[in-house]
Amino acid sequence: MGLVDQLVNQPHYTLVNQPRENDILSHKELFDSIPEEYLSHKEKYENAIRKTVLYYRLMQKYQNYKEGSTILDETRANYRNLVSFAVFKDYPPLMLHNGMFIPAIAGQGTPEQQKHWLKRAKNMEILGTYAQTELGHGTFIRGLETTAEYDPSTEEFVLHSPTLTSYKWWPGGLGHTVNYCVVMAQLYIRGRHHGMQPFLVQLRDEATHMPLPGVKLGEIGAKLGLSTVNNGFLAFEHHRIPRDRMLMKNAQVLKDGTFVAGPSSKLAYGTMIYVRVIIVNGMANLMAKAATIAVRYSAVRRQSQIKPSEPECQILDYVTQQHKLLICIATSLAFSTCARWLWDVYTGVMGQMESGNMDHLPELHALACSLKVVSTMDVSGLVERCRLACGGHGFMHSSNLPYTYGLATAACTYEGENTVLLLQTARSLVKAWQKGSKGKPLSPTEAYLMDKSPVPKWENTLDGIIAGFRRVSAGKVQDCVSKIDKLVKMGTSYEDAWNQTSVRLVAASEAHSRAVILATFRSEVSRAAAALSPPLSRVLHQLVHLYCVYWALERLGDLLLYTSIAERDVQELQQQYEDLLQKIRPNAVGLVDAFDLRDEILNSTLGAYDGRVYERLMEEALKSPLNAEPVNQSFHQYLKPFMHGKL
Amino acid sequence: MGLVDQLVNQPHYTLVNQPRENDILSHKELFDSIPEEYLSHKEKYENAIRKTVLYYRLMQKYQNYKEGSTILDETRANYRNLVSFAVFKDYPPLMLHNGMFIPAIAGQGTPEQQKHWLKRAKNMEILGTYAQTELGHGTFIRGLETTAEYDPSTEEFVLHSPTLTSYKWWPGGLGHTVNYCVVMAQLYIRGRHHGMQPFLVQLRDEATHMPLPGVKLGEIGAKLGLSTVNNGFLAFEHHRIPRDRMLMKNAQVLKDGTFVAGPSSKLAYGTMIYVRVIIVNGMANLMAKAATIAVRYSAVRRQSQIKPSEPECQILDYVTQQHKLLICIATSLAFSTCARWLWDVYTGVMGQMESGNMDHLPELHALACSLKVVSTMDVSGLVERCRLACGGHGFMHSSNLPYTYGLATAACTYEGENTVLLLQTARSLVKAWQKGSKGKPLSPTEAYLMDKSPVPKWENTLDGIIAGFRRVSAGKVQDCVSKIDKLVKMGTSYEDAWNQTSVRLVAASEAHSRAVILATFRSEVSRAAAALSPPLSRVLHQLVHLYCVYWALERLGDLLLYTSIAERDVQELQQQYEDLLQKIRPNAVGLVDAFDLRDEILNSTLGAYDGRVYERLMEEALKSPLNAEPVNQSFHQYLKPFMHGKL
Repeated sequence: MGLVDQLVNQPHYTLVNQPRENDILSHKELFDSIPEEYLSHKEKYENAIRKTVLYYRLMQKYQNYKEGSTILDETRANYRNLVSFAVFKDYPPLMLHNGMFIPAIAGQGTPEQQKHWLKRAKNMEILGTYAQTELGHGTFIRGLETTAEYDPSTEEFVLHSPTLTSYKWWPGGLGHTVNYCVVMAQLYIRGRHHGMQPFLVQLRDEATHMPLPGVKLGEIGAKLGLSTVNNGFLAFEHHRIPRDRMLMKNAQVLKDGTFVAGPSSKLAYGTMIYVRVIIVNGMANLMAKAATIAVRYSAVRRQSQIKPSEPECQILDYVTQQHKLLICIATSLAFSTCARWLWDVYTGVMGQMESGNMDHLPELHALACSLKVVSTMDVSGLVERCRLACGGHGFMHSSNLPYTYGLATAACTYEGENTVLLLQTARSLVKAWQKGSKGKPLSPTEAYLMDKSPVPKWENTLDGIIAGFRRVSAGKVQDCVSKIDKLVKMGTSYEDAWNQTSVRLVAASEAHSRAVILATFRSEVSRAAAALSPPLSRVLHQLVHLYCVYWALERLGDLLLYTSIAERDVQELQQQYEDLLQKIRPNAVGLVDAFDLRDEILNSTLGAYDGRVYERLMEEALKSPLNAEPVNQSFHQYLKPFMHGKL
Repeated sequence: MGLVDQLVNQPHYTLVNQPRENDILSHKELFDSIPEEYLSHKEKYENAIRKTVLYYRLMQKYQNYKEGSTILDETRANYRNLVSFAVFKDYPPLMLHNGMFIPAIAGQGTPEQQKHWLKRAKNMEILGTYAQTELGHGTFIRGLETTAEYDPSTEEFVLHSPTLTSYKWWPGGLGHTVNYCVVMAQLYIRGRHHGMQPFLVQLRDEATHMPLPGVKLGEIGAKLGLSTVNNGFLAFEHHRIPRDRMLMKNAQVLKDGTFVAGPSSKLAYGTMIYVRVIIVNGMANLMAKAATIAVRYSAVRRQSQIKPSEPECQILDYVTQQHKLLICIATSLAFSTCARWLWDVYTGVMGQMESGNMDHLPELHALACSLKVVSTMDVSGLVERCRLACGGHGFMHSSNLPYTYGLATAACTYEGENTVLLLQTARSLVKAWQKGSKGKPLSPTEAYLMDKSPVPKWENTLDGIIAGFRRVSAGKVQDCVSKIDKLVKMGTSYEDAWNQTSVRLVAASEAHSRAVILATFRSEVSRAAAALSPPLSRVLHQLVHLYCVYWALERLGDLLLYTSIAERDVQELQQQYEDLLQKIRPNAVGLVDAFDLRDEILNSTLGAYDGRVYERLMEEALKSPLNAEPVNQSFHQYLKPFMHGKL
């Protein structure tokens, strides 16, 4: 078995080779004759709906979706995600139906509610989304303004949007697509506030699709990306719904208006963390897509000569190009590896939680935050690096790199804005520090914070680099704690001290995340490599090595401050890095081929397997409706009279 | 006079206040009722042409364009650029008519050619662009494939595109707009090659606009940005043009086919450098736009509480937000300052060149490359930072941040791809090093490379930081020279050694550029500040200080390696940085107000002067054509039968 075949047989890769996928991709009506980027905003939506219904039918058919496949199934989600890229350049308008509507009912509905609504939702007799964020409120849940007031006289909730800033804003599919929605609102009973609760609300008439009276709906408008997601807004004008539409698995409101609090509000963290695990894996996919496109293009494109006597060389032979791109291959593997690992941690902790053990939830939460932030941040940056590495052609939509960037960068903001999440992780690190200082035991991924041994001699090895990153992280957390303490002693409130330290807290949090990612990537690959052929194992270790050295060089300032690394170590690291580029270069195309992303999924003139870059660029250009006529009508109307001085 | 008024009266700002601009902005027909992002690709083009003819007529009228205003007029170009933002979210399709077509004729045409063609072009009786890049060739001019073969028997040139990769690709307006073009082609006379020469070629019939026989034309398709520029492709099939259509100010072809070489090919550098100066200033404008939008939004947006007892705070009060945004204000000022300074250097060197003195051309070239690279790189990154700092709303096209990013990031690639330019600058630095090592004098901006004094004690002052950056740059150049020498001694060819050192060369080149930018920003502001009021002078110095400290912290690893900076200096720098954020915070909104970008120019729901963010977001959303109907037709056609299981 060759290197590529073995790599393809890794769990990450086999998914895309399922014959069912090939079946779906054989439905030519799922593909566009005129690429989406030429359509108007409205046409894009209508075309997406046309494809959506067909796509979901086929997915149901091939996945036997109705017969009990669970939503919380990582491999299936990954598979769906990749096939979806072949059909939609952006995400489809019904993305949140499976992604959040169904999980919300499953996670927060009573057995009776699940029986009725989950069946309808899974059969897609009703279509739904999930509405939490408001026009004026995102991160700060307590600030949300939508109210649900219980009226015991009619046994109804009255949903209301008191201000413009209270309009629900952003939910995918909300604009014109769904007819139901799980709405988060502040519950009031007889004037008393009972926190945010979930309500299953019908928004549109099932037969006519008209918004129900008291429901104001629309789409929020054009965006940098996600143009077919049909993100919408929603406002209620004293809109009444029956009592049984509050999802009451946790908290309950009885007929007479008695409020019964749920057993633990921590259970709701599950879905949130699950979504972040999925995001990390999604980022690995986007990185694989972009790396495949840019590496293949760089093997086809020839530009300038390294030596005057030689023909123009493949641009992948320029070491600067290798520097831009090989880290992208390593990054995709690093995040798919970390996502798989995080998935195992997640299922483990969820299992414990079902038996009432919440001990590991905070650590899991911090890990999911860290990985979500670093994966979205790094992949967004590196997708752009891939695009720019393709020169002008990367700027063409037909390269599919701009769309890929739109998908990656959006994830920096949704499901927890990155800076906010880093500060949450920082809070957990500071807590761990304080706990550790009192001699209490720390969780496995944070234990290193309390390492009080003297700074060891620097070693230019993987272990040395990972230990160095832990030193950096621990040092930064300690600095933050000291600064906060100092400010508090000077009379500053803890909150102001926290804010004044927040630039450093964010940096500490990122350093911790990097330490976790480097260590996880390294150990998981070592574990898996035992079962692989020596050549494959070698190239995977080269990628891990490249990844660690790359980040050591990127964070030299930190290493110089917090570890014993010396100038000659740095020189050696730089040389190691350049040697690794040279070693990996011959396998670069093989490695992206091994991601095994079919041409339909790549959807790119620059990245197709056959390397017909220029022919495809020309073919795609000719699909522009502007090219259907040699002279555009605007010449006669405007340009001609203008040039003749008559306008 | 208040702080803002004084700032407004700086040269950079006065331009936008010209009453003529206000006149142009009063023409309501220049603005769209349906925002561009809702139109199809074809509609966008047609709408852009509609506005273009009106816009250029008005510009001619208000600028008395016909009566001798020069194209090479920096302030006018800046003025035009800003007004253009009010009318076009992207650049207009005729951008290169004034930007490159007219300068090419002016710079490369004979007096007779200028007399005839320049007049027609300036009157816009003909519309043109400039075609050099080909589908398969960008950077490497010698690799361009389009040929122009002289036929003495008919006194014609025969233009030909021998391959698909030889198609001209990218020129703005080429698709369907212009009817003339300056085409760069490889000149052959009787089989002998005479280098790249410029030809003025008619492409379309002036009356019908049909492409001429032998001319294949079209647009290259949809892109990440610049969607109304109408970038096109062009191929010739043995297309004949008269001998006098070669622009012969420099090289000439006589009737009998005799080739007369021009006096110096270096003159052509002038236009290229000029364009780069304009780009640096353009980046300062884009940065000012993005900073204004993000800072104003951050003063309006409230989210979470710093203290539980207080109401939700302006997000600009979060130090992490100040960290993201205040550097953007400083960056805009840094690049507008450097652009003005570079403009003075440019006009000085051009003056010398006219009297035959080419001595300072290489330095100017290296400076223009450096500043073009660093300004496009930094501003692209920081525009995205502004966008992400606006959370989800920054993702909306109505924020105008995505368009702004499209304009900024495109400049990383056009007019010299950034990595290629950094390597060109590196070549000049290595040359300077070699020259200096032989005791020869260096140009003013490179003289520091030969500073052989011992590493001085680190000082946390502006002078200290700037001196530190020079040490870094000199140290990196020296490392590169050593590595190349070592490789060559080991038997590697110089070219391969160069390539193997190129990751370091790029870093050295960037370090040099940073040293130049920091020093220039600092000295030019000090010079200008003498004439300002103490409060204004103070805040400008704070911004210079912030800029220097920010970059010192960003490049700590380099400073720790190449200077005597110690851990406690770093701690103090970090504290200085945080203190500066606190000092500048109260003036943040005033400073962006002082950029004096009118609402029409900002074109942003988030950045308008009155702060009606949420109202504008809602108003803009309602402009989406999808929102014109409560139920989209696709419901009846697809969703309804789908939900009823009939599809």
